[in-house]
Amino acid sequence: MKDIPTMWFSEHVTPHFIQQFSISDVLYNGESEFQSIQILDTPGFGKCLILDGKIQCSESDEFIYHEALVHPPMLAHPQPETVFIAGGGEGATLREVLAHKTVKKAVMVDLDKKVVDVCKEFLPSLSQGAFDDSRVELLHTDAMKYLEETKEKFDVVIIDLTEPLEEGPSYLLYTREFYHDLREKLTSDGVVALQAGSTSMVISFGFVAVANTLSTAFPVVAPYQAEIPSFGGSWGFAVASQGSDPRELSPEEVDRRLSSRVSKPLRFYDGLTHCGMYTVPKYLREEMAREKRIITKDQPLFTY
Amino acid sequence: MKDIPTMWFSEHVTPHFIQQFSISDVLYNGESEFQSIQILDTPGFGKCLILDGKIQCSESDEFIYHEALVHPPMLAHPQPETVFIAGGGEGATLREVLAHKTVKKAVMVDLDKKVVDVCKEFLPSLSQGAFDDSRVELLHTDAMKYLEETKEKFDVVIIDLTEPLEEGPSYLLYTREFYHDLREKLTSDGVVALQAGSTSMVISFGFVAVANTLSTAFPVVAPYQAEIPSFGGSWGFAVASQGSDPRELSPEEVDRRLSSRVSKPLRFYDGLTHCGMYTVPKYLREEMAREKRIITKDQPLFTY
Amino acid sequence: MKDIPTMWFSEHVTPHFIQQFSISDVLYNGESEFQSIQILDTPGFGKCLILDGKIQCSESDEFIYHEALVHPPMLAHPQPETVFIAGGGEGATLREVLAHKTVKKAVMVDLDKKVVDVCKEFLPSLSQGAFDDSRVELLHTDAMKYLEETKEKFDVVIIDLTEPLEEGPSYLLYTREFYHDLREKLTSDGVVALQAGSTSMVISFGFVAVANTLSTAFPVVAPYQAEIPSFGGSWGFAVASQGSDPRELSPEEVDRRLSSRVSKPLRFYDGLTHCGMYTVPKYLREEMAREKRIITKDQPLFTY
Amino acid sequence: MKDIPTMWFSEHVTPHFIQQFSISDVLYNGESEFQSIQILDTPGFGKCLILDGKIQCSESDEFIYHEALVHPPMLAHPQPETVFIAGGGEGATLREVLAHKTVKKAVMVDLDKKVVDVCKEFLPSLSQGAFDDSRVELLHTDAMKYLEETKEKFDVVIIDLTEPLEEGPSYLLYTREFYHDLREKLTSDGVVALQAGSTSMVISFGFVAVANTLSTAFPVVAPYQAEIPSFGGSWGFAVASQGSDPRELSPEEVDRRLSSRVSKPLRFYDGLTHCGMYTVPKYLREEMAREKRIITKDQPLFTY
Repeated sequence: MKDIPTMWFSEHVTPHFIQQFSISDVLYNGESEFQSIQILDTPGFGKCLILDGKIQCSESDEFIYHEALVHPPMLAHPQPETVFIAGGGEGATLREVLAHKTVKKAVMVDLDKKVVDVCKEFLPSLSQGAFDDSRVELLHTDAMKYLEETKEKFDVVIIDLTEPLEEGPSYLLYTREFYHDLREKLTSDGVVALQAGSTSMVISFGFVAVANTLSTAFPVVAPYQAEIPSFGGSWGFAVASQGSDPRELSPEEVDRRLSSRVSKPLRFYDGLTHCGMYTVPKYLREEMAREKRIITKDQPLFTY
Repeated sequence: MKDIPTMWFSEHVTPHFIQQFSISDVLYNGESEFQSIQILDTPGFGKCLILDGKIQCSESDEFIYHEALVHPPMLAHPQPETVFIAGGGEGATLREVLAHKTVKKAVMVDLDKKVVDVCKEFLPSLSQGAFDDSRVELLHTDAMKYLEETKEKFDVVIIDLTEPLEEGPSYLLYTREFYHDLREKLTSDGVVALQAGSTSMVISFGFVAVANTLSTAFPVVAPYQAEIPSFGGSWGFAVASQGSDPRELSPEEVDRRLSSRVSKPLRFYDGLTHCGMYTVPKYLREEMAREKRIITKDQPLFTY
Repeated sequence: MKDIPTMWFSEHVTPHFIQQFSISDVLYNGESEFQSIQILDTPGFGKCLILDGKIQCSESDEFIYHEALVHPPMLAHPQPETVFIAGGGEGATLREVLAHKTVKKAVMVDLDKKVVDVCKEFLPSLSQGAFDDSRVELLHTDAMKYLEETKEKFDVVIIDLTEPLEEGPSYLLYTREFYHDLREKLTSDGVVALQAGSTSMVISFGFVAVANTLSTAFPVVAPYQAEIPSFGGSWGFAVASQGSDPRELSPEEVDRRLSSRVSKPLRFYDGLTHCGMYTVPKYLREEMAREKRIITKDQPLFTY
Repeated sequence: MKDIPTMWFSEHVTPHFIQQFSISDVLYNGESEFQSIQILDTPGFGKCLILDGKIQCSESDEFIYHEALVHPPMLAHPQPETVFIAGGGEGATLREVLAHKTVKKAVMVDLDKKVVDVCKEFLPSLSQGAFDDSRVELLHTDAMKYLEETKEKFDVVIIDLTEPLEEGPSYLLYTREFYHDLREKLTSDGVVALQAGSTSMVISFGFVAVANTLSTAFPVVAPYQAEIPSFGGSWGFAVASQGSDPRELSPEEVDRRLSSRVSKPLRFYDGLTHCGMYTVPKYLREEMAREKRIITKDQPLFTY
């Protein structure tokens, strides 16, 4: 079988589902204080960042994930000037935020300095120089603690964290308590966005529970999804606010705001894509309507 | 590692991408004259039908695939009375067709009698008795040849075949020549629908080329997609006709037609899902706009 | 890739080594009170018994394992009449024991009745009717406890247990304390034999420690190995006694005793094979000479 | 599953058997004119050389393979001064040959210069400087052609080639025709040794046929085996000659010759190991006795 690739990245997506990508090179393989870190080159998806064995992004489709996470909350705000990013170590969320000409200040807090350093060296196509932008303040500390202590308020907050693994650093940022604190850190028109895991039927419980928990703190919660091939299917996101609702934007208004505010062409997101993302299938709408679970510090959510 | 499952179904989706489901039982493992056939029970997706090593459907999400394939063309027709199905051996496409009260006759032609027999015995939840409906005519012959020879015309034709593998039985039904012949077998308001492979970026060339080839025979070609988790991502479909266009149906009109014509509740498809399916992301629209390839008998399309 | 098998048994032999066999059928998949049990049919090795995810025997090479485990201790004894077997649920160790015409009584104690029952039904080629032999007494209880309480002594004791997994039922039978108790249950010329895990370099520490621990209770300890392909390499065994030493038997004497005592032809074991098994390579002899570890109840051995 | 390794080398040993090692780094991944070449670092076996997807040697157990291949033919010769090596690109066979103080000249012919260069750079622990020894003549050409054309004769010839893959470069060197030609290139006491693939039952047909074919050209053929864990089981070798027979050497004579002729300590091979290697199990002796197949140019042997 000379034609079967010999080297593979293997990810246990669920206990009963594995996906494997062939790899051509290991660019980095190490550990930080918080997690294992790998940067792999793959024929199918380009270079990939892997944290604790789970793929975080691939060169081939990271544009879908990052455009989907960043532009809906940015456009839902009338004029976003200050942005807070929790996580986002590879720098691509920051890159998309900085493409908005309205932005005057972007504070990014990622616990793990090593992830940022490794990505700068081995995955520079992700940040594309974003870390050198003079509007950026980059800190390596606990994002939750930073928000508790800061006096600042932000127009947009983007939560771009790893999945809430049982021993991982991020599960407390998926709780009611955090969302209630977060509310106080937003300016009056402030908007929050977060990624919330897979919406593939087999493992969408996390997404649905996160959306439900968000609604205990915010009157507007707009869940949406986008397909990320390297993640093995559709991925869930949500925008939340005290009033601004991205679902009220028509395709034309999305395209108009993009063209006046964003300084670069996008590949995934535009007015029509916006509509498609906010139109989730019937079974997922029904699942969200049924959901009662509230995620709390005492009853946290853990994904596999 | 007592907690890692010991038995796995492994599918090479592309040369560089494998997906694996854990399996709990092998209900059937054999070969027909045309292909290898397996029916496996899996903890993640329920019972699955596998042909030539490729998953065809799973109990957990077959409703997405079959509702997405059948209802758009059926609703795009003003009153579908006669329906032709090419392939569809497991009987679920037929099941969805028969749910339309307007249907008086459904001719299903699947080359491989053994697939039908094995599915009836081991996957009865797929056909749910559809083969016993008095409106059904079931034949085991070559669908292309049948269409060539028949004098009948149909209101709706649904092409529900396996992927065009190099040595497989179905690649000729993905060519310009076949689509031109097919046009003659439709009544004046006739509508065709087909599945056309993955629309995940890495392997969407097939879908895009099929849609482009269809447009050499039909003035209306409406491509769309739906996520099928067990297929590893989004799947492409297209409706084609001489005039009827499902994209002109409003969500409300879709819901109205469903409620007056369909005799059972659906889980995936409704007016909103219809809109979401027809709103594909920007990069896929651009890829379709760029596509020039026409699939012909002499230059056929083969998938991996 | 039509020619790559679609269904696989996957075993994590070590954390860094997996072996996978293609499977054609799942004959049994269930759980007993003590462990998970699978009987799989495989094109490469025939039917296989899997306990807690680890292969126990395959039809294609079980004759190597069972002949290697049983005949050396039986031949080292001048006239074995009473035999005790701990474990051996599939019945093949018993089958080999009963082939010795000197045997008047064989007591087999396997904790897990379900393993015995499932093997009788789905793997009858292993026991070949051994359980029906009138010389057999079969009990389902804790072998260690049985030996503690019985007044009987045995000419040969064969320990044919699963690996000492951390949560498994058998780790206490790999300790100094057990070997000391065991000594009291042997008749004056009594011989013990056991399997002791892989002797492949990467994971031979268990075998070496077991042999070393045995030597705290028995003046004669004769370790040996045989290659079992379905186990992924060479497997270690040891015979221990107060004086009888199989290494003193010449090839001719082994062949002579076999022909006078054993009622059936063997496929793996004869005088020459006996010599080969007891001639382990230099690095393994050196590893055994260096070994100081004694396995005790308080510091048990666990394999992966 | 944070504790399951994420990167794996996967080898299809047979169509129905895969072995996978976890990998920590890819040191080299490229192609030569003749084959694909990878050098991988692995937690289980150290650095490994992979050619065309098949493992050729690992740091952890290459000493077994190379000592087994080289020392039996060298000791079987009364005073080996000239040695020819076909293949052996990584330099470890050469290293073992040069440890014999009798050697005055070693000609090594490996078709693929790139393998030699890559191994020198990334696997220097294999050759340990052997290529710099002044007794060595290294050529990159076809070994069979070289032997045809050379006027020289050799005391020992060692065939250390990759498996005879269908499209690979080496299958002609496993034929009767080649062995007959080879006979003419030996001095009067000359000895040939070769590796001949797995002797694990499931795939030993190659080994048995090679040994049988050798015997058409040489009156003495002494097959033997050694377990190479990273190869997944026991591996077959054979020594052939016009009269010298390694099986006639007693363990004491082997040890005596080693200590007088070899300038470094060995880890695998000594007098006892020699005996063990030449004592193959009964089923393999019987298989060899039954074998009738002669491998020829017209009916060559191909392994998977």
